[in-house]
Amino acid sequence: MGREIKFSLVYRDMWQSSGKYQPRVDQLTRIAPVIIDMGCFARVETNGGAFEQVNLMYGENPNKAVREWTAPFNEVGIQTHMLERGLNGLRMNPVPKDVRQLMFKVKCAQGTNISRSFDGLNDARNLELSVKYAKEAGMISQTALCITHSPIHTVDYYVNFADKLVDFGADEFCLKDMAGVGRPAFLGKLTKALKDRHPNIPIEYHGHTGPGFSVASMLEVARAGADYLDAAIEPLSWGMIHPDIITLQAMLKDAGFSVPEVNMKAYMEARALTQEFMDDFLGYFIDPSNKLMNSLLIGCGLPGGMMGSMMADLRGMHSAINMALRNNGKAEVSLNDLVIQLFDEVAYIWPKLGYPPLVTPFSQYTKNIALMNIFSMAQGQPRFSNIDKDSWNMILGKAGQLPGKLDDEIMELAKSKNLEFYTGNPQDEYPDALDSFRKEMDENGWEYGQDDEELFELAMHDRQYRDYKSGLAKERFNAELEKEKEKANAPIISVRPVVEVPNFDVEKVTEKYPNAQPVQTPVSGQVIWQIDLADASTAPVVGTPVKEGDIICFIQAYYGIEEVKALKSGKIVQIETKQGDKVQKNQILAFID
Amino acid sequence: MGREIKFSLVYRDMWQSSGKYQPRVDQLTRIAPVIIDMGCFARVETNGGAFEQVNLMYGENPNKAVREWTAPFNEVGIQTHMLERGLNGLRMNPVPKDVRQLMFKVKCAQGTNISRSFDGLNDARNLELSVKYAKEAGMISQTALCITHSPIHTVDYYVNFADKLVDFGADEFCLKDMAGVGRPAFLGKLTKALKDRHPNIPIEYHGHTGPGFSVASMLEVARAGADYLDAAIEPLSWGMIHPDIITLQAMLKDAGFSVPEVNMKAYMEARALTQEFMDDFLGYFIDPSNKLMNSLLIGCGLPGGMMGSMMADLRGMHSAINMALRNNGKAEVSLNDLVIQLFDEVAYIWPKLGYPPLVTPFSQYTKNIALMNIFSMAQGQPRFSNIDKDSWNMILGKAGQLPGKLDDEIMELAKSKNLEFYTGNPQDEYPDALDSFRKEMDENGWEYGQDDEELFELAMHDRQYRDYKSGLAKERFNAELEKEKEKANAPIISVRPVVEVPNFDVEKVTEKYPNAQPVQTPVSGQVIWQIDLADASTAPVVGTPVKEGDIICFIQAYYGIEEVKALKSGKIVQIETKQGDKVQKNQILAFID
Repeated sequence: MGREIKFSLVYRDMWQSSGKYQPRVDQLTRIAPVIIDMGCFARVETNGGAFEQVNLMYGENPNKAVREWTAPFNEVGIQTHMLERGLNGLRMNPVPKDVRQLMFKVKCAQGTNISRSFDGLNDARNLELSVKYAKEAGMISQTALCITHSPIHTVDYYVNFADKLVDFGADEFCLKDMAGVGRPAFLGKLTKALKDRHPNIPIEYHGHTGPGFSVASMLEVARAGADYLDAAIEPLSWGMIHPDIITLQAMLKDAGFSVPEVNMKAYMEARALTQEFMDDFLGYFIDPSNKLMNSLLIGCGLPGGMMGSMMADLRGMHSAINMALRNNGKAEVSLNDLVIQLFDEVAYIWPKLGYPPLVTPFSQYTKNIALMNIFSMAQGQPRFSNIDKDSWNMILGKAGQLPGKLDDEIMELAKSKNLEFYTGNPQDEYPDALDSFRKEMDENGWEYGQDDEELFELAMHDRQYRDYKSGLAKERFNAELEKEKEKANAPIISVRPVVEVPNFDVEKVTEKYPNAQPVQTPVSGQVIWQIDLADASTAPVVGTPVKEGDIICFIQAYYGIEEVKALKSGKIVQIETKQGDKVQKNQILAFID
Repeated sequence: MGREIKFSLVYRDMWQSSGKYQPRVDQLTRIAPVIIDMGCFARVETNGGAFEQVNLMYGENPNKAVREWTAPFNEVGIQTHMLERGLNGLRMNPVPKDVRQLMFKVKCAQGTNISRSFDGLNDARNLELSVKYAKEAGMISQTALCITHSPIHTVDYYVNFADKLVDFGADEFCLKDMAGVGRPAFLGKLTKALKDRHPNIPIEYHGHTGPGFSVASMLEVARAGADYLDAAIEPLSWGMIHPDIITLQAMLKDAGFSVPEVNMKAYMEARALTQEFMDDFLGYFIDPSNKLMNSLLIGCGLPGGMMGSMMADLRGMHSAINMALRNNGKAEVSLNDLVIQLFDEVAYIWPKLGYPPLVTPFSQYTKNIALMNIFSMAQGQPRFSNIDKDSWNMILGKAGQLPGKLDDEIMELAKSKNLEFYTGNPQDEYPDALDSFRKEMDENGWEYGQDDEELFELAMHDRQYRDYKSGLAKERFNAELEKEKEKANAPIISVRPVVEVPNFDVEKVTEKYPNAQPVQTPVSGQVIWQIDLADASTAPVVGTPVKEGDIICFIQAYYGIEEVKALKSGKIVQIETKQGDKVQKNQILAFID
């Protein structure tokens, strides 16, 4: 019998890489015994990531969910694990020290056995406290190496990073292949090097299937000494998600490993329950394209989850870039050419930016800079003419140290703008905050909860927690769900274009602004307001000043782009159409007063 | 630099494993130069399989298509290949010797360089003439080993089979992993064994991505000495189809192999063209579920292409099986349980049937026997009470020799039914036929065509060729396309059930059969006529005799099954509803006279 390989069911990430929400606690407690019956999982990923935030967003208590969901696994000795983002904890922005410390205490008390900690830049400093606090709380501290593919992300680079994590006291390693771009042979070499150096540290491989490498990668790391593999189950396996346990088990068994059998009756029951949860409400928030794989992600190394929004951005930018090209006497580009240009531009600037691992949010920053470069160059301006604030923060080291050296060109640019580089520990910028949250709870008469778990939730997700307490979150979620259900039930007219004329009230505007003048479209087409790269591209905010003759927006007509100009100077007082809306000739887009 | 690995674009199979039709010749000739520009393909699969039949079915000439489509590749030295089914040639039933011989002459003259020949049972006798005729005609004869996963499909089994093919004079081997169930480590061992024994015979691996092994399998066979890998391109890669060239290229490059670069500009152009072909007409015949992977296929080893029709069959059978169980005082089963039962039954009977490789049509036969067993046992009858004619033919050796030994139980059964085993060469049953087709052409005044290519088309696909010549094929295809387009343009009401009352003409029936009595449904629900396992389950044929009190069909009501009985004896003279139709209470289902 060969070496033993154990499996973990990443039930939390399965949902998060498919859609927006997680199952409710009543659903989780129904499926827990079935997962146990499957008989093939040594571990289950129960929480972490956006799990708690999602609970709050649909108006339920994450503490109750974690306690009830981990209990049956704890009972039978299946280990539970969670994902946390180091400095960013369970959210997307930095978390004070005392809140990070409390998190591990609370989650351990609630029944989570293992904390998987990662830093998007692989800056060990951002993980030091995660290891310390996890171990103090009594958890197994698993530290993640974020996998990306670049000339500097070598075996030596990762081994060097891993050494620091071991110095902190890390119990385990996770190879976190979040975009699934790790090449199988490379991952095998890396696993072997880590095992040679730290033979007693278990290694767990976590890979998404988007670009198609992951099954091959799992065979490679298993042969090289990995101990645990993360797997999904139907109907949420494959696509941008994870490989299915059935495939992994069959492959490894044939390759001579000792692997548990899968109880297929329980598997089918878990599959049916998961489908039932989707039919109940979760499926309304799942984009079907997440079930499709996509090799185009390999070229740029961008994670699969970004592809949808990136294509939407590109479609919006396409006309604007072509207009800039036309104005500069250059040839227009097709949308396909633009995708390739963007991938090429990412590949070109990525080294200059010091190879930040292409994981949220650094993947978005890199893509934004690349897209702005393409736009700037189309306008006849040099590269890096426009870099947004968040991207600058990444460049300046405010989120941690970039893996590679910044290009001289970028260094010069920062100097010319008098921007200062930050070399301190990012954590130091965020002072302890629990006292102020205790005060808020006291004032509201809110309980701190068992093991201070309610205090923790407020401190980690303050805005979402307040909305949860007020009932606003549940109300908002119910309204959102209702809307999605209506959409699903409504007749769908495919192929035929739909032109909707919005139901606005001209009288109301002219009553409030007697001199307001409408901005009307000279042609039928699609509205393109200004393009926002850092966020969703939307219409200008009300109050934006405009001068007569200014271009207010563009209309993508069937034959090309038409400019829409202000016919008077003033301020925009009302917006009548959204980005991308289809409009008919003479339709009112906005009012200027 | 490592060993060289070459790629083949399986442009024909990409379409065939996605949907029903192939691109037209005008489309193929547009994409050919773009495929050449991609710069990464040493070979392109241009035709074979159902390619010619599909051409005829939409009313176009396959000879023109093959000549024009292979020409640009021939010009630049990219090898073209086709798939042929040995004894069955380019169709699903046996082909006379002289027609098989003519096929290789014609296809070689038309510009196809390589013939990939397979036999669904891996019976070497069925491939002997394929090798002989291909080489006589001047083609490279590539012989395929159909990959399946069983205790008798060992490395030794395949090496022994391959030795026979080499004795015939085969130039190359293809590992044809048509269901994608070959396990990566096994495929590596097999490749190495073949290379050790026949170091100068090139090996090409062809695998479908359905169950998720294929990328890992490609890395394994490449390391073990394979020379060519079959790849697809977007938007038709992954799912039940093939891995994308981008993924394979990146993986092998990282693993140290010498592989060509992919010209991404040309790739994106080919992707856009392929999408354009889908939008034009091909997409109307593509089931979107073919883009999804499915690990459930591994347990039973059935090919992915069968999953959709199998689930449809099971849904139809589900009520009937439950009714049989109820009648025998046994507990009912859920649809999920039934799927697992079927997979288990396939696993149970497959060894008893001598492990036929689960490829069309043998996969269907095995599934049918398993399903009938479940039904028989639910009715309290023993296993193998009902075996259809085609399955018996497989058992009796009429399609070739089964790989394994038949179980004593099956041997006894055949004996008890006085069925005789066939041990001769299957080809011997089919006498030469070209003369009769020449006669038909002469009588119709049809030209034999350049290199006798028109004679060949008639002889290979006689029915389709006649419909093509008469114009009926094109007419039928245009009507089918029109209907699909209408469906796509029609409003889709999702979720809400649609109840359509068919528009039949009672007067007409009663005029013709004055005493005809209607069969009406006592409840609203869904019509289940008798279940046909060998083919689509349909209503009984007109003329079927029935006795008063006979069960005519079943109605699946929301609460369970209702029987519909004949109220008089006679013959069914008219059918008003199709299998699965939704009907309202008192609706007329049929007439008896």
